[in-house]
Amino acid sequence: MTVATLPGQDWVDDVGPVPGLELLPWDMDGLPPRADEVRVVVPPYMGAAGRIPALRHTSGVELVQLLSAGFDDVLRQLPTGVSLANAGGVHDASTAELAVALTLAALRDLQDFAAAQRNRRWLPLEFHTSLADRRVMLLGYGSIGRAIAARLTPFEVRLTAVASRARRGDGLVPSVHGIDELPMLLPDHDVVIVVVPLTEDTTRLVDAAFLAAMPDGALLVNVARGPVVDTEALLRETSSGRLRAALDVTDPEPLPPEHDLWASPGVLITPHVGGATTAFRPRAVRLLREQLGAYAAGRPLLNIVHPR
Amino acid sequence: MTVATLPGQDWVDDVGPVPGLELLPWDMDGLPPRADEVRVVVPPYMGAAGRIPALRHTSGVELVQLLSAGFDDVLRQLPTGVSLANAGGVHDASTAELAVALTLAALRDLQDFAAAQRNRRWLPLEFHTSLADRRVMLLGYGSIGRAIAARLTPFEVRLTAVASRARRGDGLVPSVHGIDELPMLLPDHDVVIVVVPLTEDTTRLVDAAFLAAMPDGALLVNVARGPVVDTEALLRETSSGRLRAALDVTDPEPLPPEHDLWASPGVLITPHVGGATTAFRPRAVRLLREQLGAYAAGRPLLNIVHPR
Repeated sequence: MTVATLPGQDWVDDVGPVPGLELLPWDMDGLPPRADEVRVVVPPYMGAAGRIPALRHTSGVELVQLLSAGFDDVLRQLPTGVSLANAGGVHDASTAELAVALTLAALRDLQDFAAAQRNRRWLPLEFHTSLADRRVMLLGYGSIGRAIAARLTPFEVRLTAVASRARRGDGLVPSVHGIDELPMLLPDHDVVIVVVPLTEDTTRLVDAAFLAAMPDGALLVNVARGPVVDTEALLRETSSGRLRAALDVTDPEPLPPEHDLWASPGVLITPHVGGATTAFRPRAVRLLREQLGAYAAGRPLLNIVHPR
Repeated sequence: MTVATLPGQDWVDDVGPVPGLELLPWDMDGLPPRADEVRVVVPPYMGAAGRIPALRHTSGVELVQLLSAGFDDVLRQLPTGVSLANAGGVHDASTAELAVALTLAALRDLQDFAAAQRNRRWLPLEFHTSLADRRVMLLGYGSIGRAIAARLTPFEVRLTAVASRARRGDGLVPSVHGIDELPMLLPDHDVVIVVVPLTEDTTRLVDAAFLAAMPDGALLVNVARGPVVDTEALLRETSSGRLRAALDVTDPEPLPPEHDLWASPGVLITPHVGGATTAFRPRAVRLLREQLGAYAAGRPLLNIVHPR
């Protein structure tokens, strides 16, 4: 019987049964069960790339289904002849709400209030920046970008979506701008939220010239991947106090203790926790049920980011 | 000519001209200009209650138009025969976004990440609580409550609105529950956002029994007024680690340095900054234009919270 492996017995219990497939637990650490019959492998959510070499213990795997949205690191390790699907949609709610949380925390200066709280000090009233009336750019407009747009829309912001190519808008934005329009668009935006996948084209997309085009006091939010941003260039702009940043991902990552980014003014760092919430599991279980059902029934697969 | 005073020349410049009214600056600190002709007074945004006694220098004031949403403190000082209007609507965007910011910051443990950042430490991955899938109660469903509801809706939450009396819902909630249903509703909610006006009925509404009815680990967010919550009762629940709280208002306020609330675990405090943002001024100018225009034309006044 065709076997699909899931990263643990708890996943097998929550996802199964799937008609036509036998679900077995495999964390890709030891040897796979029934190695010759395994056709679908779901690696653990964390550290998937490091486990991909374990596929050498199998012979007929057709599909690797990730539990993460990012797949750049896995793709570099993937054997030929294996399709790769990401967990598109699973992390939308969780990552989008972190993007909004970081944006609000940075604009409303929540870090200053936290510092004042530690010092038991009620700060005198000052006016802070609202999210309302800000001009916000979403750089990347896939499913997470749209989830952020949906969450930002009621905040009375002006939204601009930018993707690799210009296209028509949707119910959330009137149009999607092409990435070639960035130099013209950036000076008009108070907040830029980066949510592009990491590819050759997007590596260091946010470089010194990009940052220089952002207006004084603007905020860069990165919930994509660290290498999309040139860290040294960003550090120059934050250390001078010209730009602010809220980063869930960094380059290098994890950020080493001696790195200057930790203490740069106006920089807020969370340790890559965009997807790591209670929202993950119920949405991952739903996706796996759909995907494994589609595989077993020979229907088109979902979220294929790299075909065989 | 009928005179309306505004708290400074900058306000006169931004709001005027208003046909049929002469706008003059008066910060209510010195004597009013043309005291006998003043019919409308707009006190400064901050410290309005302390300035109300200056109305004794006038003789024919018919309307005091506040720039704040809260009016409990002004009402206690208001001379008879004067109508009071609040700035309903002006602070909706700003206060609602702070309520969402505090909710997200508390649920996603942004304070822990800020502490780790100060220690230059990349925390190992742990799963945090998402706003998605949470059951959120809005206690108070006036214009700020609805503004919070609008902002929370795309976050995949389950929303419950509670107001002084049960009534039909709107496009955001299917129905509005009456305050008498609280004991039944509270155990089913992960987050309670308090946004009621401070009145005799709402003073200490969130008391020991209210808090005891909230489930373990639940979050109380207060963007209303400090005395709506029994601080000592809340402190018992947060110090034990059973409940969490995010408070933009406290009782006493400002919170004195020696108060235990500052250092209680799971408590996040901001110094009453709900309305103090860049969103304030353009919205306040719009309201004043409308209200002064209505007054001058003899049309019904907006936002009257206490008629003459």
